[in-house]
Amino acid sequence: MKLKSQWMIKPNTRVRLAKIKTLEREPSRDVAQRVLTHRREVLAKLQNMLYAEQARAVLIVLQGMDTAGKDGTISHIFSGINPQGCDVTSFKIPTHLEARHDFLWRCHVAAPPKGIIGIFNRSHYEDVLSPRVHKLISPKVVRQHLNEINQFEDMLSNNGTLILKFFLHISHDEQKRRLQARLDDPKKHWKFSDADLKERQFWPQYQAAYEDILSHTSKKHAPWFVIPSDSKPERNLAISGILV
Amino acid sequence: MKLKSQWMIKPNTRVRLAKIKTLEREPSRDVAQRVLTHRREVLAKLQNMLYAEQARAVLIVLQGMDTAGKDGTISHIFSGINPQGCDVTSFKIPTHLEARHDFLWRCHVAAPPKGIIGIFNRSHYEDVLSPRVHKLISPKVVRQHLNEINQFEDMLSNNGTLILKFFLHISHDEQKRRLQARLDDPKKHWKFSDADLKERQFWPQYQAAYEDILSHTSKKHAPWFVIPSDSKPERNLAISGILV
Repeated sequence: MKLKSQWMIKPNTRVRLAKIKTLEREPSRDVAQRVLTHRREVLAKLQNMLYAEQARAVLIVLQGMDTAGKDGTISHIFSGINPQGCDVTSFKIPTHLEARHDFLWRCHVAAPPKGIIGIFNRSHYEDVLSPRVHKLISPKVVRQHLNEINQFEDMLSNNGTLILKFFLHISHDEQKRRLQARLDDPKKHWKFSDADLKERQFWPQYQAAYEDILSHTSKKHAPWFVIPSDSKPERNLAISGILV
Repeated sequence: MKLKSQWMIKPNTRVRLAKIKTLEREPSRDVAQRVLTHRREVLAKLQNMLYAEQARAVLIVLQGMDTAGKDGTISHIFSGINPQGCDVTSFKIPTHLEARHDFLWRCHVAAPPKGIIGIFNRSHYEDVLSPRVHKLISPKVVRQHLNEINQFEDMLSNNGTLILKFFLHISHDEQKRRLQARLDDPKKHWKFSDADLKERQFWPQYQAAYEDILSHTSKKHAPWFVIPSDSKPERNLAISGILV
């Protein structure tokens, strides 16, 4: 893949999230809307070709801190696509059956077949985030899992899946604003969870865990993109631009 | 795993199937039956403990030339086990959906969860057998797949699955006798397929493909056993002995 992007993490570079901006240049809502509408049409056409060809699959991984905008990214960017060619899988706390399998199992089961764009709303990377932050797994197991993830994505890539991974990068302050908005706005109440506040206390640990992920698992055939996501229009333009 | 067996292939040894006997010492049917009955009871108890503990899984892979006795092995050795704790998956020609995924997908989907003995009647190794013999994949892809298989089994093993792989080793003559029996005995007609005769012509190529598999994918945590299988009682005693 000859993909160039200012947000792409080069393989084997040490990532410091504090040095990467969460807001670069906010576009006007008007311009952003026009560009995004156009790109959605392009994406829909490209997806049609992918579906007709049935030779390759695309896997899009979305990760980010709570409120980073994973759901919004999916609804804003992929709303124009034929749902028959697009599978979204949201990974929650593992079910009883999922927990009885290796951590990659549920993600491999949900991997897109040829012709399909698969979107992972959270993913196998969750298993090296929360369990690590809360010290449920040792540093040795974290390293082992990161290695297993690289091998897994390598295998998918070798067998015809294009993998693109997006880390939606927001600031600590922006998360506060968004959590507050969920409390203030009755239409957003349903999104608020006490657990989000609890996890917010572990912000530095999560950032460190993400830095390890970004540093060790950004590969030529499965790159990570750190997307400035304090501004939703900027985030949508950045991701849709890379996809198109 | 501190398993010792005369039939185990040590990691990184070059296997020559012609030098390994397909019949070692045929036990009397009477003795074999008594021993097997006992071992089935032991296996049933061990499986109960595995099920109760829910901490580990067991994956048994059965491979062999046509008529080598994969079905017979399953029915003779595992008939005493509670089916709730034992999943048998028979891999046939890939379905349309399976073919649209990477070759490991259907095997990972069917991998046993903790507490379960999973038996693969044929397996992910099929993808480096027939496609290789019929030159549908290049030597480079064969090597890549063998590597991916090692990484996949490593990952399963690291995450709590004990893997035991059995190659049911029969002679060219024994296969002829068994194919003839399928033609002669009306009760075995349903098992006969013209395709078996066609594939029999590729015997040397299949043996060579198996030699590569056995040489490259027998690992400490996922060993191969080459089981002399011209005699069904000897085969059953060998495999049940290793399992117990």
